Amino acid sequence: MRKPKIVILGAGYGGLMTATRLQKAVGTNEADIVLINKNDYHYETTWLHEASAGTLHHDRVRYDISGVIDRNKVEFIQGTAVEIKKEEKKVLLENGEVEYDYLVVALGGESETFGIKGLKEYAFSIVNVNAARQIREHIELQFATYHTEEEKKDERLTIVVGGAGFTGIEFLGELGNRIPELCHEYDIDIHKVKVICVEAAPMVLPGFDPDLVEYAVAHLEKKGVEFRIGTAIKEATPEGIIVAKGEEEPEEIKAATVVWAAGIRGNAIIEKSGIEAMRGRVKVNLDLRVPEHENIFVIGDCSLMINEEINRPYPPTAQIAMQQGETCAKNIAALIHNKPLENFKPDIKGTVCSLGENDAIGVVFGKKLVGKKASFMKKVVDNRSLYMIGGAGLVLKKGKFNVL
Amino acid sequence: MRKPKIVILGAGYGGLMTATRLQKAVGTNEADIVLINKNDYHYETTWLHEASAGTLHHDRVRYDISGVIDRNKVEFIQGTAVEIKKEEKKVLLENGEVEYDYLVVALGGESETFGIKGLKEYAFSIVNVNAARQIREHIELQFATYHTEEEKKDERLTIVVGGAGFTGIEFLGELGNRIPELCHEYDIDIHKVKVICVEAAPMVLPGFDPDLVEYAVAHLEKKGVEFRIGTAIKEATPEGIIVAKGEEEPEEIKAATVVWAAGIRGNAIIEKSGIEAMRGRVKVNLDLRVPEHENIFVIGDCSLMINEEINRPYPPTAQIAMQQGETCAKNIAALIHNKPLENFKPDIKGTVCSLGENDAIGVVFGKKLVGKKASFMKKVVDNRSLYMIGGAGLVLKKGKFNVL
Repeated sequence: MRKPKIVILGAGYGGLMTATRLQKAVGTNEADIVLINKNDYHYETTWLHEASAGTLHHDRVRYDISGVIDRNKVEFIQGTAVEIKKEEKKVLLENGEVEYDYLVVALGGESETFGIKGLKEYAFSIVNVNAARQIREHIELQFATYHTEEEKKDERLTIVVGGAGFTGIEFLGELGNRIPELCHEYDIDIHKVKVICVEAAPMVLPGFDPDLVEYAVAHLEKKGVEFRIGTAIKEATPEGIIVAKGEEEPEEIKAATVVWAAGIRGNAIIEKSGIEAMRGRVKVNLDLRVPEHENIFVIGDCSLMINEEINRPYPPTAQIAMQQGETCAKNIAALIHNKPLENFKPDIKGTVCSLGENDAIGVVFGKKLVGKKASFMKKVVDNRSLYMIGGAGLVLKKGKFNVL
Repeated sequence: MRKPKIVILGAGYGGLMTATRLQKAVGTNEADIVLINKNDYHYETTWLHEASAGTLHHDRVRYDISGVIDRNKVEFIQGTAVEIKKEEKKVLLENGEVEYDYLVVALGGESETFGIKGLKEYAFSIVNVNAARQIREHIELQFATYHTEEEKKDERLTIVVGGAGFTGIEFLGELGNRIPELCHEYDIDIHKVKVICVEAAPMVLPGFDPDLVEYAVAHLEKKGVEFRIGTAIKEATPEGIIVAKGEEEPEEIKAATVVWAAGIRGNAIIEKSGIEAMRGRVKVNLDLRVPEHENIFVIGDCSLMINEEINRPYPPTAQIAMQQGETCAKNIAALIHNKPLENFKPDIKGTVCSLGENDAIGVVFGKKLVGKKASFMKKVVDNRSLYMIGGAGLVLKKGKFNVL
């Protein structure tokens, strides 16, 4: 009898968790496991704002996939998935194709620009290691160029962050630490630097506790961040952005750097492959399978599950992606062992939003935290995701220990 | 009786040498000494190729002027000279003006583009600290951007150096060390990187010993440099350069980075102030004074003196600028003390051209050197210029000691 073949697309939080759990849950004689990823490394998406600001080297936010999978049990293919052929049970890659019996789609999210003109061309997004180091270098070049020009252009020192959600706020926190360093490095008067956060929604960090949000805004403002709340980006241009608040006249903000951190959607492959989705996110069954496609699991940012308590989707977080990876691995093992599948039930231990070095806000096990305590918990969360996938060795290698 | 006022324009090798020697040679009751410089720091022009390549931090190539002058004897004004009013014996600054009895023009050189179209707009020049760090950051951004683009643009990884003279060759040597680091940092295949040196003259390092030149070319080619000798840059464009060799058809070389290191001229203020000059360089008398302007000295890159032995001008080097600064200080002291002036006589101890880490070529005290020995001598030369101006303390602070 032919062994079933399990193909996992993506080595992000969800995909790697699935692979590392599956390699223990099924024997080599029971199934072949194939992991496919664009790069030969995994990166910590939730740390990319640090690499983008330049406060953490990008090599600290990634690690080799080969170091965390059991190469005797999991075959790793470096490749880019292009389309899923559901009927033929195969995945087309840029160079080749792979057949599957069970497929796990864990391809992660993409930036969503909501059709705002010019954003794709003129704004950066904190989406992967390549983008993060480009943002860091771009900002550095602006500061380095400032004094070389006869006519000083202050807009070189203006950074606009689009979005006051999780990523936007965490990136602003890092900029608060990075900008004094850049000013020192390039002999720039810090008062010339502007960091502006533009958010279309009427609030910062929607869904977060209002006391914590107030703390975050106050602390970021103290670091020099200017908030423009209830203000929408209408267009990005080579010179900056056009914003408008309600019915007011549109206004131009000149800025050499615009970072769009306001939207995430699922991977475009989903729609291309004819799988029903909303902005690339598939409303999966409780067992994480795609309705009507019982051999396809979708987890992480490409999946959509409703939190019945508030009747809104769960947010696309690393925490949920990893928990889904665990359930997904169990359910595939159950299919192979002819046992019943279990339903996914998120277990939200807490959420911590960093505000830069030694500062953060968060709710952990139902308790509100700010400042150094919250920052400490953030590092615990960061180290935990390393531990879950790569064990203590990976924590020692890549963990964050600059804890006061 | 009014004390005479000595004004020194520029705190480069020549200006700082003049100031530090004058502060010892004349008493505070004999003269007022004023040093005027654009920045509050001096930079080692001969080290800028390292900061530009990114092999030495730009803070290592500069030091505070206040640390090497005696503030009780020399008044320092941070300002930019705009014009010399010879008849009124005053210097116009961007913000204000300063009168003088004796003037030392030590403003250094500027890049000379010989009217080649587009060079000013699209090429960099290794002319000061600001330019150097911009070049470094620009190159880094190209490497950082490479992997973020759907369609890979190999020209991002192409660096053209215009000129195979001293600066061009030394910069190429540093790139040879820096590029493997950049490739590692940004996951770039080193075979994709191109470094092309374009030189209009039929030879590399004209005036240098042919055996040493051969050594230099072979070693740089081994590091991946491609030489295009006898090839002129016709035009620089946003995409790269247009070159032509003799009567051949012009050819386009696509390159994201073009560094022009082929020409130097004196400061444009010279001509603006109505002082006779050739490309901003004043043919001074043997006592370093301007003909018909007995109270104005011109030293360093703005001066021109003929080497009678070969009937060609002495090259604009740090070595000569510093020696001229010494003679200039002596002659001004002589004028104040009503003593005869002396003629400047260069004492060329040697010339060493770096080829990157632990490699160089040079002639020192008439002896040819290559490799580690030459590289060692280069560091001796570099440390010596620190010692001459700032003494042992400055050598300890900024010197180069990574000598095998």
